[in-house]
Amino acid sequence: MNVRYLTGLASSNAAVLLPADGPAVLATDSRYSGTAATLCPDIETVIERGVEAVLARLAAERGSRTLAFEAHEMTVERHDDLSRLDERPRWLVPLGRVVEELRAVKDDDEIRLIERACEVTGEAFTSVLHLLRPLTTEREVAVAIERAMVDLGAEAPAFDTIVAAGPNGAIPHHTPGNRPIASGDLVTIDCGARLGGYHADMTRTVTVGEPASWQREIYELVARAQAAGVVAATPGAKLADVDASARDLIEGAGHGGHFGHGLGHGVGLEIHEAPSIGQDKPGTLTERAAITIEPGIYVPGAGGVRIEDTLVVRAGNGAAGEARSLTTVTRELLVL
Amino acid sequence: MNVRYLTGLASSNAAVLLPADGPAVLATDSRYSGTAATLCPDIETVIERGVEAVLARLAAERGSRTLAFEAHEMTVERHDDLSRLDERPRWLVPLGRVVEELRAVKDDDEIRLIERACEVTGEAFTSVLHLLRPLTTEREVAVAIERAMVDLGAEAPAFDTIVAAGPNGAIPHHTPGNRPIASGDLVTIDCGARLGGYHADMTRTVTVGEPASWQREIYELVARAQAAGVVAATPGAKLADVDASARDLIEGAGHGGHFGHGLGHGVGLEIHEAPSIGQDKPGTLTERAAITIEPGIYVPGAGGVRIEDTLVVRAGNGAAGEARSLTTVTRELLVL
Repeated sequence: MNVRYLTGLASSNAAVLLPADGPAVLATDSRYSGTAATLCPDIETVIERGVEAVLARLAAERGSRTLAFEAHEMTVERHDDLSRLDERPRWLVPLGRVVEELRAVKDDDEIRLIERACEVTGEAFTSVLHLLRPLTTEREVAVAIERAMVDLGAEAPAFDTIVAAGPNGAIPHHTPGNRPIASGDLVTIDCGARLGGYHADMTRTVTVGEPASWQREIYELVARAQAAGVVAATPGAKLADVDASARDLIEGAGHGGHFGHGLGHGVGLEIHEAPSIGQDKPGTLTERAAITIEPGIYVPGAGGVRIEDTLVVRAGNGAAGEARSLTTVTRELLVL
Repeated sequence: MNVRYLTGLASSNAAVLLPADGPAVLATDSRYSGTAATLCPDIETVIERGVEAVLARLAAERGSRTLAFEAHEMTVERHDDLSRLDERPRWLVPLGRVVEELRAVKDDDEIRLIERACEVTGEAFTSVLHLLRPLTTEREVAVAIERAMVDLGAEAPAFDTIVAAGPNGAIPHHTPGNRPIASGDLVTIDCGARLGGYHADMTRTVTVGEPASWQREIYELVARAQAAGVVAATPGAKLADVDASARDLIEGAGHGGHFGHGLGHGVGLEIHEAPSIGQDKPGTLTERAAITIEPGIYVPGAGGVRIEDTLVVRAGNGAAGEARSLTTVTRELLVL
């Protein structure tokens, strides 16, 4: 995905060499040569299957003594292969996540794509609400949402849609199955559209029939925690503090053990990308980061609630400085 | 995917410790704890986010001095993290692809799932043939096939469906776009269903309107190459020889430069898995390998043909020893 970000080429086999003092060189294999010529006409391109080896040789030929590589992407095996090359820069050093850090800051075009993906997601979600009634299965709802997103202009779903009804709502990453929705269920729906390569991510929990008091209680708690997370998501905020802003409310209400995942993550060319917002995550939020804020409470055997928006972090004071939600659907509890 | 194969748990964060002389231990994070308890009740399970570190510590505690890891999966960064643990087995050594080799040999249940996925793929393909006419766009065909597969019982498409019409057919991995099909086009459709986690993979090329003689010629050449590949796919055959059986025919006809990819690949829990069948691939075919045979000819600017079946390699002589095709659609040229 970093290659796509830097060059525009989406490929399952590509690498980029970025000399400190010259233009980039792209390597990919013959399956992508035509696409590369069309999408990246101004980038020198080498067509060869061993994309890393060919670029390492080229770097050596052109006088580089040090080659940085993405240690968080490269496997030990591929690194060993590189190390054994006769002709390569002498030093192989880890690059770190510099491209991911660039990617975390979205430009206007990227924000527009994510915004449009969020709109499509919201419209698709709203268009299937009439299906959320007893006897419809989780899977039927998931399929209907994904089709609606594509009909509304999505390239594809951003990820496998989650529909978790009743006790299944206690499983954050539940795979929708043949369980029919029952009256009295909390139903959690986590869905998103992909548009121009960019992802939207949204979760809403609704009730089918009037909610029981425990259901309304955890819904309101999660909604308060979500709102607190949004307020805390300002440029320069520590990622761990953003997480704590929501988690403290949930823990204070005695549900700390029912919120086992991080508060959110970056979205962009990948559905999960930098920054990762969690209890023990180092680093801070940047202006123009596109992120999710998605606290949840999962009560084993009973059900769960998660509320998730996709937002853009922005500078300013008061409302002008609050992260802008790209998610278009109400955060009020929908009672269907 | 190796963890899923060994334990049944599908998770984005899991690892397995396999002591040489004791039962396996599974590690995953809290998002998957409920699913793990349900799917793997008999496997000792540790819930912790750092799945590799926790298992390395456990291995040391239980007296292991050597820990093998999958060097083709583990990143350099994660390996460095493991290496720096205070408490871990002394020696970290690469395991090689032993699990992939186990996975290449399918049992009866796995073959049944792939067979059913192939049937769904074929039925879905046949059900959209009426759309293959002038003015339908590539993308409309792709969406219709994917929906038909899901309606016929697929969990999901096995991969993004390829529909490549006219000159786009010269791009092996073309993304279907808004190009309308035109009379006289070769149209290549590469699609597959996923069922119970197992994948089908099929490609057919059809003509819309009567084919020109060059189109019929390359179609028949690819069909002959495909049939030759199937005949060569016997237990013990060298992977490079299987590739050559088809490639030699294509090269002999002067189209060697128009066939830039390998002849096929294994299919199973992943759409591309071991064995990889190509010119320079080491190793041999095993009985019960599920593979594709998919030669193609791609003529830049004009169009392309690819024909692909999913097959199971089996022992025997003559027809009884020929790989059994699980793909149900005719390999004759369909003129629509």
